[in-house]
Amino acid sequence: MALVVQKYGGSSVADSAKLRQVAQRIGETSKKGYQVLVVVSAMGDTTDELIKMAYQVTEQPENREMDVLLSTGELISSTLLTMALSSLGYKAISLSGAQAGIQTDSNHNSARIISVGPKRIYDELQKGNIVIVAGFQGINSGMDTTTLGRGGSDTTAVALAASLGAEECQIYTDVEGIHAADPRVVPGAVKLEEIGYDEMLEMASSGARVMHSRAVELGELYEIPILVASSFSSTPGTIIRKERAMEVRNRIRGIAHDTNVARVTIQGVPDKPGNAAKILEPLAKAKVSVDTIILNASAEKIVDFTFTVSRNDLDKAKTIMTSMIDSLGAREVVTDSSLAKVSIIGTGMQNTPGYAALMFRTLYDENINIQLISTSEIKITCIINEQDAEHAVRALYKSFESEITKRIKT
Amino acid sequence: MALVVQKYGGSSVADSAKLRQVAQRIGETSKKGYQVLVVVSAMGDTTDELIKMAYQVTEQPENREMDVLLSTGELISSTLLTMALSSLGYKAISLSGAQAGIQTDSNHNSARIISVGPKRIYDELQKGNIVIVAGFQGINSGMDTTTLGRGGSDTTAVALAASLGAEECQIYTDVEGIHAADPRVVPGAVKLEEIGYDEMLEMASSGARVMHSRAVELGELYEIPILVASSFSSTPGTIIRKERAMEVRNRIRGIAHDTNVARVTIQGVPDKPGNAAKILEPLAKAKVSVDTIILNASAEKIVDFTFTVSRNDLDKAKTIMTSMIDSLGAREVVTDSSLAKVSIIGTGMQNTPGYAALMFRTLYDENINIQLISTSEIKITCIINEQDAEHAVRALYKSFESEITKRIKT
Repeated sequence: MALVVQKYGGSSVADSAKLRQVAQRIGETSKKGYQVLVVVSAMGDTTDELIKMAYQVTEQPENREMDVLLSTGELISSTLLTMALSSLGYKAISLSGAQAGIQTDSNHNSARIISVGPKRIYDELQKGNIVIVAGFQGINSGMDTTTLGRGGSDTTAVALAASLGAEECQIYTDVEGIHAADPRVVPGAVKLEEIGYDEMLEMASSGARVMHSRAVELGELYEIPILVASSFSSTPGTIIRKERAMEVRNRIRGIAHDTNVARVTIQGVPDKPGNAAKILEPLAKAKVSVDTIILNASAEKIVDFTFTVSRNDLDKAKTIMTSMIDSLGAREVVTDSSLAKVSIIGTGMQNTPGYAALMFRTLYDENINIQLISTSEIKITCIINEQDAEHAVRALYKSFESEITKRIKT
Repeated sequence: MALVVQKYGGSSVADSAKLRQVAQRIGETSKKGYQVLVVVSAMGDTTDELIKMAYQVTEQPENREMDVLLSTGELISSTLLTMALSSLGYKAISLSGAQAGIQTDSNHNSARIISVGPKRIYDELQKGNIVIVAGFQGINSGMDTTTLGRGGSDTTAVALAASLGAEECQIYTDVEGIHAADPRVVPGAVKLEEIGYDEMLEMASSGARVMHSRAVELGELYEIPILVASSFSSTPGTIIRKERAMEVRNRIRGIAHDTNVARVTIQGVPDKPGNAAKILEPLAKAKVSVDTIILNASAEKIVDFTFTVSRNDLDKAKTIMTSMIDSLGAREVVTDSSLAKVSIIGTGMQNTPGYAALMFRTLYDENINIQLISTSEIKITCIINEQDAEHAVRALYKSFESEITKRIKT
């Protein structure tokens, strides 16, 4: 019997009525003759409420305790979903992350999965059970509960799909799939039928919040097709999978944007070997995630070193950089907290210089000032002022619409 | 270093302010040079809320799923209490029931502890940690979460105290100890300095809700002294321990009452061997707990068989009995749901007939009708109408006050 892995996000199980609706849907898949393994997130804003409770008790909750606390959210939703399935007459059982065999490292709050030992899942499926796994959580070698950080339940689902050899991992959420641009910003932006793993990764890291990068990376590694679709409608959704053959793909897949961007520039850094490392190492140590990095070497051997971070990391990054001015021999640290990035994403774009030109021309025509540019093999990103972001996305969607919607034969 | 086990009930950790107060108290014990192991219940009415959530999803939640669901209440309170301790500068760590080595049978919702393997607790104490254990929960041989039923956290605390050889198990709650009668009914009822295990068991089974019988039984079995005291005051509390020598004990320890009593009478049962078993077996199978049982054999070989149950079991008991009328050859089933029991409790009472006489005389003088009487070695119980209960307790306390408060030399 073929196995399907389904994941339901927090908004899909936010109350008892939704839990029953989701149970109905799971049951229908089971009736079609599939073995069904479900991964579920915490209900609604349970996780945020648990975090709030912790901060009412202490300003600095320990990571280990926080993990046990947060893991209860998914234990609750998984048992309730199991009860809902049973009440509809299906055989079902809930398993914690530990029982599902999710072994992780000990990096509490953002643990990585080391291995999956799904013996118990396998046994329960063999007994004819629909298995409901509490997402987002695992267990370390010391038998302590860990959590996987943002996007954790997606990661649980893809990891289980990979280790059990599932045909597909289905991520059910409150959107109908991956759109070529945020439909709240660009009404009518097309929904993609499919997208490659790399393109999805660039979309995710560029601000498309539908799926977390870690789950997509894992899907790519094990070649698990990932379907993203709505929990409550039957529209087809978007499938994330290995790139199809050259001739049926289009170059531009979509426009992504992210308004949680801040910039740090260290001005007047002597251009000598080791300074880049000197700048980045203490940031990594402080767990500040650096996004775009720009360094323009110059004839004067004095450069400005610029990088972007998410806004909540700006203060930390600024403090660290300011403390290093002397040891770097730099002049000054300048920051800007109200930036955004817009990106156009598509495989093989770098070989087609016309796209970059069209992007810059579009922004110029709209009087949108570009502060920084960074490119990768499948993405061109411009950092602009925050207030220009939505305007930019709409203009870019219009410029690239024919590319996005047509299939290109090369 | 001597080890102290402390247990805090749900009302003692109902919000973040109380959690911090309790943490302060635990910290002070630690500062005095004790190793401290804490068992904690779910916050406030968390357990009731979780049960409500389950019944919103299904009318018949499975016991296995319910156990995982309910166990989250204590996981939450244990992590938050640990965070509160850390924020005060103490080294602390939370452990689930499974991590604390609480092995139980598979009787979900009311599991029994089979063994305790406290290696992890021992290790954490050795590292200088205050250990906070999630009460009420354990794990069965299949690695599934179980819960211990009513009074479960008290049982966890006494079991851990026994297996770790603690000097004392301290139960902190919202009352100041065990009183000779319910102080809400008898203002000024004395608080007992100490009470024997058996007497406490009779008090508990007769309606004194301070501690559950299972925990007291376990304390008796392993001779662990149990202190019952207030979480937030420093008054001394009551110690439950092995009976002191004869000469320092008093005969009457206290008056207990319980208004959750219903009566079932099967009238006209032929008095033949096996009928009592025939009546009780299906009740046991349906998990109806039968309290007092009265059968008066008569010359006519036709008897009335009467027993009492808690009110929530009355419908079930009535249905079962009614279905058996024919096979028993009985006449009719009669029930009464608005009864109460009042008991006087004290070691060695049966050898002193004056006490029973005084009890019946007191109730008679107050015009309180006695429906049923049952006696044990250390208890005399009268079943009366519910509306007479508080009146009866006050009158009995007055009659026995001098016995309760004086120490008798025999």
